[in-house]
Order: sequence, then structure tokens, then C-alpha cells
Amino acid sequence: MKQIKSIGLFTSGGDAPGMNAAIRAVVRTGLYYDLKVFGITRGYDGLVKGDLYEMDAKSVANIIQRGGTILKTARSQEFLTVEGRQQAYDKLQEAGIDALVAIGGDGTFTGAKKFIDEHDVPIIGIPGTIDNDLQGTDFTIGYDTAINTVVDAVDKIRDTAESHDRVFIVEVMGRDSGLIALRSGIGTGAEAILIPEANLDFSDTLDRMDKTRKNKSSRIIIVAEGDEAGGAFEVADRVKNRFPHYDVRVSVLGHIQRGGKPSCMDRVLASRLGVAAVEGLLAGKSGEMAGLIGPDVCFTPFDRAIKHIREVNPNLLKIANILSL
Amino acid sequence: MKQIKSIGLFTSGGDAPGMNAAIRAVVRTGLYYDLKVFGITRGYDGLVKGDLYEMDAKSVANIIQRGGTILKTARSQEFLTVEGRQQAYDKLQEAGIDALVAIGGDGTFTGAKKFIDEHDVPIIGIPGTIDNDLQGTDFTIGYDTAINTVVDAVDKIRDTAESHDRVFIVEVMGRDSGLIALRSGIGTGAEAILIPEANLDFSDTLDRMDKTRKNKSSRIIIVAEGDEAGGAFEVADRVKNRFPHYDVRVSVLGHIQRGGKPSCMDRVLASRLGVAAVEGLLAGKSGEMAGLIGPDVCFTPFDRAIKHIREVNPNLLKIANILSL
Amino acid sequence: MKQIKSIGLFTSGGDAPGMNAAIRAVVRTGLYYDLKVFGITRGYDGLVKGDLYEMDAKSVANIIQRGGTILKTARSQEFLTVEGRQQAYDKLQEAGIDALVAIGGDGTFTGAKKFIDEHDVPIIGIPGTIDNDLQGTDFTIGYDTAINTVVDAVDKIRDTAESHDRVFIVEVMGRDSGLIALRSGIGTGAEAILIPEANLDFSDTLDRMDKTRKNKSSRIIIVAEGDEAGGAFEVADRVKNRFPHYDVRVSVLGHIQRGGKPSCMDRVLASRLGVAAVEGLLAGKSGEMAGLIGPDVCFTPFDRAIKHIREVNPNLLKIANILSL
Amino acid sequence: MKQIKSIGLFTSGGDAPGMNAAIRAVVRTGLYYDLKVFGITRGYDGLVKGDLYEMDAKSVANIIQRGGTILKTARSQEFLTVEGRQQAYDKLQEAGIDALVAIGGDGTFTGAKKFIDEHDVPIIGIPGTIDNDLQGTDFTIGYDTAINTVVDAVDKIRDTAESHDRVFIVEVMGRDSGLIALRSGIGTGAEAILIPEANLDFSDTLDRMDKTRKNKSSRIIIVAEGDEAGGAFEVADRVKNRFPHYDVRVSVLGHIQRGGKPSCMDRVLASRLGVAAVEGLLAGKSGEMAGLIGPDVCFTPFDRAIKHIREVNPNLLKIANILSL
Repeated sequence: MKQIKSIGLFTSGGDAPGMNAAIRAVVRTGLYYDLKVFGITRGYDGLVKGDLYEMDAKSVANIIQRGGTILKTARSQEFLTVEGRQQAYDKLQEAGIDALVAIGGDGTFTGAKKFIDEHDVPIIGIPGTIDNDLQGTDFTIGYDTAINTVVDAVDKIRDTAESHDRVFIVEVMGRDSGLIALRSGIGTGAEAILIPEANLDFSDTLDRMDKTRKNKSSRIIIVAEGDEAGGAFEVADRVKNRFPHYDVRVSVLGHIQRGGKPSCMDRVLASRLGVAAVEGLLAGKSGEMAGLIGPDVCFTPFDRAIKHIREVNPNLLKIANILSL
Repeated sequence: MKQIKSIGLFTSGGDAPGMNAAIRAVVRTGLYYDLKVFGITRGYDGLVKGDLYEMDAKSVANIIQRGGTILKTARSQEFLTVEGRQQAYDKLQEAGIDALVAIGGDGTFTGAKKFIDEHDVPIIGIPGTIDNDLQGTDFTIGYDTAINTVVDAVDKIRDTAESHDRVFIVEVMGRDSGLIALRSGIGTGAEAILIPEANLDFSDTLDRMDKTRKNKSSRIIIVAEGDEAGGAFEVADRVKNRFPHYDVRVSVLGHIQRGGKPSCMDRVLASRLGVAAVEGLLAGKSGEMAGLIGPDVCFTPFDRAIKHIREVNPNLLKIANILSL
Repeated sequence: MKQIKSIGLFTSGGDAPGMNAAIRAVVRTGLYYDLKVFGITRGYDGLVKGDLYEMDAKSVANIIQRGGTILKTARSQEFLTVEGRQQAYDKLQEAGIDALVAIGGDGTFTGAKKFIDEHDVPIIGIPGTIDNDLQGTDFTIGYDTAINTVVDAVDKIRDTAESHDRVFIVEVMGRDSGLIALRSGIGTGAEAILIPEANLDFSDTLDRMDKTRKNKSSRIIIVAEGDEAGGAFEVADRVKNRFPHYDVRVSVLGHIQRGGKPSCMDRVLASRLGVAAVEGLLAGKSGEMAGLIGPDVCFTPFDRAIKHIREVNPNLLKIANILSL
Repeated sequence: MKQIKSIGLFTSGGDAPGMNAAIRAVVRTGLYYDLKVFGITRGYDGLVKGDLYEMDAKSVANIIQRGGTILKTARSQEFLTVEGRQQAYDKLQEAGIDALVAIGGDGTFTGAKKFIDEHDVPIIGIPGTIDNDLQGTDFTIGYDTAINTVVDAVDKIRDTAESHDRVFIVEVMGRDSGLIALRSGIGTGAEAILIPEANLDFSDTLDRMDKTRKNKSSRIIIVAEGDEAGGAFEVADRVKNRFPHYDVRVSVLGHIQRGGKPSCMDRVLASRLGVAAVEGLLAGKSGEMAGLIGPDVCFTPFDRAIKHIREVNPNLLKIANILSL
């Protein structure tokens, strides 16, 4: 194993709050261990093009509190090809970069795995995505901030729902996963939570709404983007069909869920995983994602980390049900 | 003029942050002047049905910071009829209510004016609407909170726009008025602001975007709901047609703009106008809206207050233009 | 074991954000299992005096997002005596309450344990305190919100520190524990974190500050209330003695750390533990605190839960050190 | 009059949220009118030392939402001397700077006036201070954000006050002026507001507290730093002396009041005044502060702007009194 003297760092996939805190941690840990640290811009696109610059402690000053990613992120068609990856490797050689830290989600780690299979560059991943849909970590960086953003938004909508005795259907992010919907639904006291994993019969939800009719004048229903009941607008139609006199409104929260100042949890998580990623590389690890399980940092091979398991904590589902009386 | 011993109070139209602060102020001022104060629920609907209850200092404790309206708000078909208004009058007589404070927007004041024309009940209005589209007050209650909510949301979206080099089209409330769009557009440093009042040629905006191409990798365009360029999706299409390689996204902020904790400005404004409304009634006023112009409370007849003037401060338009370099 | 048909519920000790979410969960879970639920006001004081009222689903509507505790909290001298506890027991008998849920911290559980030793009333505890100083749960309800509040405050202070090239000494809560300081220190990128558990030699910190002099013009030092270096003012004096030309300021964050809207994490945690507490009682448990360890709810005897262990995650200390370059 | 081709820009005095928005506006307006724009760092200190750099549109990208000032601020002993000011003038000549924009408060404008008296450099001021203590503008940049910060903090403290039935004495900034205290006091529904301008007999406040004893279990008293009743701790002692059984606590909000993301109002105000300042210079103005009175930008000579008038809107005092029932 070659000694690592210089590392490269990039963010890839959708941006997530806390990515900058992770960047800061990787850079400062690298410097702490006397490494050179290069920031690669725009993810795999910058890797292929060799868009990179050396970073020092000042490069990451005063960014821990900022959403987005100062290294930017983008899609790369070229990196999907063998030639593109060869070029990326050449650029790394040119710059004298011995190892990489990749911050992102499943697409990021899929790419990283391919790269490792073809080239001799150790890579450690850091889970940065609001979706929380990776194995090998209790939480991904950005998830906690995203659910707080949803909760803030729904609290606002609740004010209007209560004032007007309305039913609001609120659609949150989660094409493949209801994890944002589930926790933010419990956190906002939603009367129903529709997620792909639960596979609920929506007519049951409607029956329940009928039964609790007298208790409630307003209601919030949280729908994950990817739920089979259809998007928020279809759910709204079904509610209106069943209860024609209800005043039903739709709110699709959209892109506000990605940005914003990271929560303390996300900053601490990002800081811990950033340190761990660099120390992992120095300890000879590669092809693994640093994650946090319980109180401990641990490493999970990329192929296991990205295995999407369509399953949520059944305890959370039960609780959502009990509390939506 | 009959001496006023008892007043009724209601909120009507869309809810707005600060309505509760206004309710608190009206109730406490009423009590301060030894009046009985009745809360009428659900606006004109509650007026027609006589849904009301006596309020004391405790009824309004700890509500100054809450969004929405504890008196609720609703539409009333009945109040639109002569019979409905007669019934409302009878209910007031029954309850011994001598005068009314109506918190809401132009629909509210139109109704109030009709009621005054037919019945001998003094009414003072308080401008509670996020739209800021009334004459006779610099700001309506809720507007300042709404523009802060938009600014918060767009700051989040900016994180993603910057990270991905994207163009975001953000649609904000304002069917008839671009006032929310204009100020929040300046406040977020938007690269373009599309409002019904400005009657801009959108192709000019596109030309400008072309010219500043090299300076900017990301852009935010704020569109008022009612702008003639069409909603946000149509604007997005036009941007994509002109700049096919841009990554263009749409975010419709929707109902989050109505709720939330009122800003300090809205709380102070609501408190001042609540006091003024009660003192106005005691001074024999009726058919007028209390407003704030510069540092001073003043009163404007309902028909003047609701005269929607399609015009915005030209200075703000100019500034938006200069700063969007 | 007597069948439980009716439960009482109270909050005790310092208030913490998320207590209302826990109250809501206990009440709704009780109703879900067809129990009567009584709210006891002002903690043990209300227990002794029999200040209680029956709660229904509406009693806890729209409180999940509110800080503080609707049941209030207070100290009770009487409950510290045998007679006081006897009277509390008599009041419970009178009201037909079979079991209790106690939300609070170590003082709360110490009292509960005494009560159980003397009287036949099952009690389950829920950890509600911003201090996170209990065993048997990864986090206490309120801790996550508190560290977010600290992070928000320090982000603001950082703006001024950067603008003026100042050193700020920020004192956070934690008489016996540096857990708030440690995580919020990492989350704000503090240059030094002083906590009772670490037993650092403060002169080392000063030496470090000397070494990194050229990199930094501004600095934030977070001090836990209970750290041996003395409070924030003493720390400030020591910094000024060593670096007379530094512009050093102190900020004691104080009571703002207790209040505010609970974070999503705290709401979900409170909801889960509220459900678990009631189900625990129904399953025959008593004298235990419901907590969350990793993904699972578990129960810990009161005497173990309150055993204060002066120790923090060494990994977090290490990270704080590496990142404060 | 010399034609202006190049302007310099600095911030001075205490930092205030919105200063960056003003910097952005000055820079972009300068560029819009084809001027060169130089940023001078650390206020008059940088002026004396010639610490300056040319700014372009990118220098001020993505700063509108950030607290503090990217140009930094500091005190300068040298600028207080004739020689220091001469040196500052020489540095400006050297850099080819024809005119200045000074963002700050009364100290800033006092210095600017002196400089103009001695040297031929036109200067326009922009009011950037959280204190709102300048004549010639309804609001100073930063004030709106500061009162929102206070309101947020006191809302949190109110949660604890309500939960524990406590009296909280909250001290806010304002050595010479109670304007922060007054508006934030009304905005938080404080039970008493103590400000230097009102010259209230505090024993009257205590008498009032006695009378409303039965209505209220918790209370918030807001004290301006500079009030004659003494700081918050002295006020607390007097409350405790009169009502020994009250649980009285003190919170000094301190430096959090200066920082944070500027509110929309502050961003718009800063943007307008930044544009106006540059246009004012181009129109031949000097020695004046740009301000906003009602809807209109206007200019006020420095000596009038800084004339501190110890007076507050009597209407606000009356309202505070009525609503604190």
C-alpha cells in the first residue's frame, strides 16, 4: 500500500445541508495529519476535467453553518464511460492525488465503486443526502435538517388549516423512501402519513377520517413523493370525492427541503464522518462508507451501503397511527 | 350616537400572521376602557349564526406570537344576502353588541360597508392580509412576516441553485399584486422579478440573462402568481426554450406564506391598530379602516381603502433592476 | 397486579422543549387503550395538592410544536416529606388514578423512586431535560432543541466576532455536564470547548491559541457553566491576561436555551417515549424510565438512569480538538 | 466639482445585520454607473492604512443574506488625529478614490464630518446600526433584525416563564435609547418596559404588578441597558424585595442581538439606501446621510442625523401600557 500524502475531495448528487461541514472536517483533518488536500469541483465532472484546487484551513473558514456545497455538484455523463474514468484517473495522477473522499448518496458510491474496480485509488465515502436511504449509518448528513425544514413548513400550514378548518395534503421529498415523510409526519402530528414502504390502503385512511370527524376540524396529510396513492393532487381528489364539503388544499414543499443552515446534529455528524473518512484512508481502508451507528463510527462497503431496503421502523408506523387520533 | 358598552370582534378572509396580536390588542383595549368584548368565530359566518363568546384578558394570553387566528375565519354565502345580514344584525342585538371590529382584507371591508349601509352598527376595520394591497396603510398585518417567510425559503433554494448552477423560478403569492414578489425579490437578490404591475416584456429579461451569462452560474427568478408571463411553469418553459442547456427548476412556495410566528413589525403594527380601532369606535368613528402611514395611525373610509390601485413604488422597481446585475 | 384503568401524568424539574409532545403522546396513547388520563399540574406540588383534571384528545391538540409544558412544573417541599407523599397518595386514591407517568430529569425520578418505595403506585418515567445527563437513553427530550438554540445564537455571535476580529467567550448551560457545550461547540466550529468532564488544562488552550494566531482573527470559546476554568468571565480574564491586545467579549446565553419550538428529533423522541411509557405501565412495568438506545425503546430502572456518570464520548473530544485548527 | 470615477466604501462602528446588503448595493450601483469601487477594510483604520481592494459584482455575490460585514469594522485612534486623517486622505489620493460611502452610526458620521471639513472628499453616509438612534431615517439598517432577534429570544423565555410561573427580567441593548426595548417589548407582550426616555417611576410598575396579581402567574419585564432603574439585576432585586415569594430570574440577551441573517425589511432598506448613496454622490451631494422617511429616500446633513434626541413615539408608550393588563 502506497503511503497517502495527498487527498482529493468532492461532493456529488443532490446537495444536502451539512456537506460544507463535512468538507471542512475533511480538509482540517487532512491538514492535521500533514496531508495536502485538494477540492475537486462539481463532483465527477470536475474529476474528469481536473477542476481542482488546493485547500487550506482558511478555505473552509466560516462555512460550517452554510447550506449547499462550496465545491458544487453536478452530473457527469463522461464519468459513466470507461474513457471518462480513465481520464479522471489521469488527472488525479497529474495532480499527485493519492486517495479520495466522496460525499454524496447512492449514485456517488456506485460511481466510486466502479472507479476503484478499474483504478488503484482508495476512496472513502461520506453519506451526504437528505433522503436517509443508505445502509450503514443511522442518519445521512442533511436528513435532520430536512425534517426540521418540513416541520417548520407544516407548522406554518397548520396555522392556516386550523384557522380555516381545512384539510391540507402536503407532499414532501422521497421518491423511493418515505423516511422524510414518516418522521416529519410524526413531528407535525399529521393525521395521516402516506409512504411507499407502508403500502397502506388509502381507503382505510379515509374511513379513519370519517370516524374522527367530530374531533377534528382541520387535518394535515403528509404524502411522500413516491407513495402509490399518487402525488398530493391525486390524494386531494380522493379526499374531496369522499368528503365533498371539505375544504382541501395541496402544498408541494419542493426544493426548500434541500437547503438551509444545517442543524447541530447534521453539523456534528458531518464533522465526525469527515474526520473518520480521512483517518480511514490513512488506516488503509477503501471502498467503504463512513457512517454512524448508535454512538460509534463504522465503515460499510459501498455495495452494502447502497442496497436500498424498502423498509421503515415498524415502531414509527405504529406510533404515527396511535397518535393521529 | 349611542354609547358603546360592548363590542364584537371577528377575523375574515385569508388568515395572516399578526391577526392574533390584533385580537389581543382589541380585547385588552376594550377591557381597558371597561367595555364588554365578544369574539365572533369564523368571520361573517359566525356573525350570521351568532357564534360568539365573551372574552377576557386571559382569553388572549400567550397568543401574540401565534400565527393564524384563534377566532377562525371562513366564507359566508348567507352574509352576501340581505336576509343574512338582517340575521347577523338580529344576533348582535340579541347579544347586546353595539359595535364591531373587523380584521381582514378587501372582501372583509366590502362586507362591512354593506352592513353599515343597511344597519346601525358602527364598524372599524383593521387591515389583516399578507397581500399589502390596501390603501390607507403603509403595510397590512401579515405582509412583513410573509416576505420574511419568502426570503427564508428562497435563501434555502439559493443554496441549491448555487451548488448545482441552476436557474430557479420561484412563484410567490399575489394574484392581483406583485408586492410580495417585489420586496422579497429585492430581499433575496433575485436576478429577475416578474409582477403584474410592471408589465415587463419577458423577452427583455431573457436578453439580460444572456448578457450577464458569464457573471452568473445560478439565478433566482421570482414570479408573482398573477403576472402575465404566466405562472412559474410557463416562465420556466420560456427560459428553457431560450437557454436549452440551463438546468431550470420551479418552486411554488404556496401556503407556507400565510402562516408562522408574526415578525416583530407585524406584532407592533397589529397592537397599534387594535388599540386604534377600539379608540376609534369610542370616538364615534365608523366605516373606516385603521392604518399606519409613516409614524402615525390614521383612518381611511372603507371604499377608499379597498380601491385596488395597480401600481408599485417605481423606486423599488428601479432598484431591483440595478441590483440584479 | 391491579388492572390499570386510569393514569395520571405530570412534568417536573426544569421545562424542556418537547415536554408538550410527550404529554400529547401519553394522553393520546392512554385514550387509544381506553384509559382515563388525568393531567396533574405543577409536578409533585400538584400531586400533593390534588390539582388535576381529566384530559381528552382535544386537551392536547396543537401543542406538539410548543415549548414549555402546558401542565407546568414547580418545586415541592412537601413531597420531600413522608407526610407529603402520603397526602399525594391519598389524592391519587381519591381521583381513582392507578398509575403515573412522570416527565422530567434526575430529581423527578429520585422523587418517583421514593414514592414507589412507600406506596403501591406504578410509575414510568420519561426523560425530559435539556441536559442529556441521564443513563438509559441516547438523548433526553429537549437536548436536541437546546443545542440547536445554542448553535443559532453562536452563529449570530460569530458574525460579530468575524466583523470585529474579536474573541468571544460563550457560556452555555450545564452545571454538571458539558454535553451541551461539547456538541454545540463542534456544531459551531468553536476554537475551544471547556467542559467539566475533560479536565483540560486551560493554559494548553491558551498555548494553542498562541500557535494558531496567524490563521485566525476571530475566535469562539464555548464554556459549560460548570467547568472548572470558572465561568465565562474568569475565562475572559485569563485570555486577556495572556493576550492583552485581544478584544475579548463574554456572552452568557442563559435561559433562551430552555425554550422554543422543539426540533423534529425531540418531537419524535417525545412521541415514541410517550407511547412507550403508557404501554410499559400496561405491561406491568414500574420504577423504570423509557429511553431510546439506538433505534430501540428500552427501559432502565430509575436508580440506574439517574446515576450521573462524569464522562463524555472521547471521540467527540478528539474531533473537537482536530477541527479547531 | 470633480467628476467621480471611483468610490471607496467602508463599514464602521458596531456591526449590524444588513450591512452586507448595503455593501452589495453600493458596489453594484457603482458598477452600474461605470465607477470603480474599492472596499476599505476595518473602517477608518483601513482608511488610514490604505487597506483596500477593488470590488466587482462577484465580490458581493451571495452576501445579501449574511450578518456582520465582509469589510469588517474596527476602532481607529489614528483617525481621531489630524495627522491620521491627513494620512487617510493621502491613501485615497494614491488609490485614485474620488468619493466615499460610509456605513455606520453616529460615531461614523462624526468622523466623516470631520474628514470633509478638512479634505475635499465627498462622503455620503448610510445608517447601519441596530440602535435606530439616528435622525433623518425612520429605521436604521439592522434595527428590524435586532428586534426580531429579541422577540425570538423572549418568546423562548416566555415558554419557561409560563411553565414555572416566573418573573423574567430581560435586558436588551440600548445604552442611550430604549427603542429596541420599546418595540420588542410591545412585540413580546411584555408586562413592563423600562427605557431611559420614559423616565418612569419604577414603583408605579411594582404597584401595577400588585394590582394584576391574580390575572397573571408569569411576567416578562424588558429593560433597556441604559434605563435609570439600573440594569436587569437591580430591577430583579427590587421586584424580589417587593414580592419575596416571586421566582424572579434575569436574562441579559447581549451580543446575539447584533448578528444573524438580516430580515427582509433590512435587506430592502439597505438595498435602497445603497443605491441612493451612490446616486447621491453622483448628483454632487456630500456630508449627508441617506435615509428612508415614509416611502421616500431623503438626505440629512450629518450633524442633524447624529443629534440624539431622547424621545420616543408617545403613542407606542401608551400602547405598551394599555396592552400590559
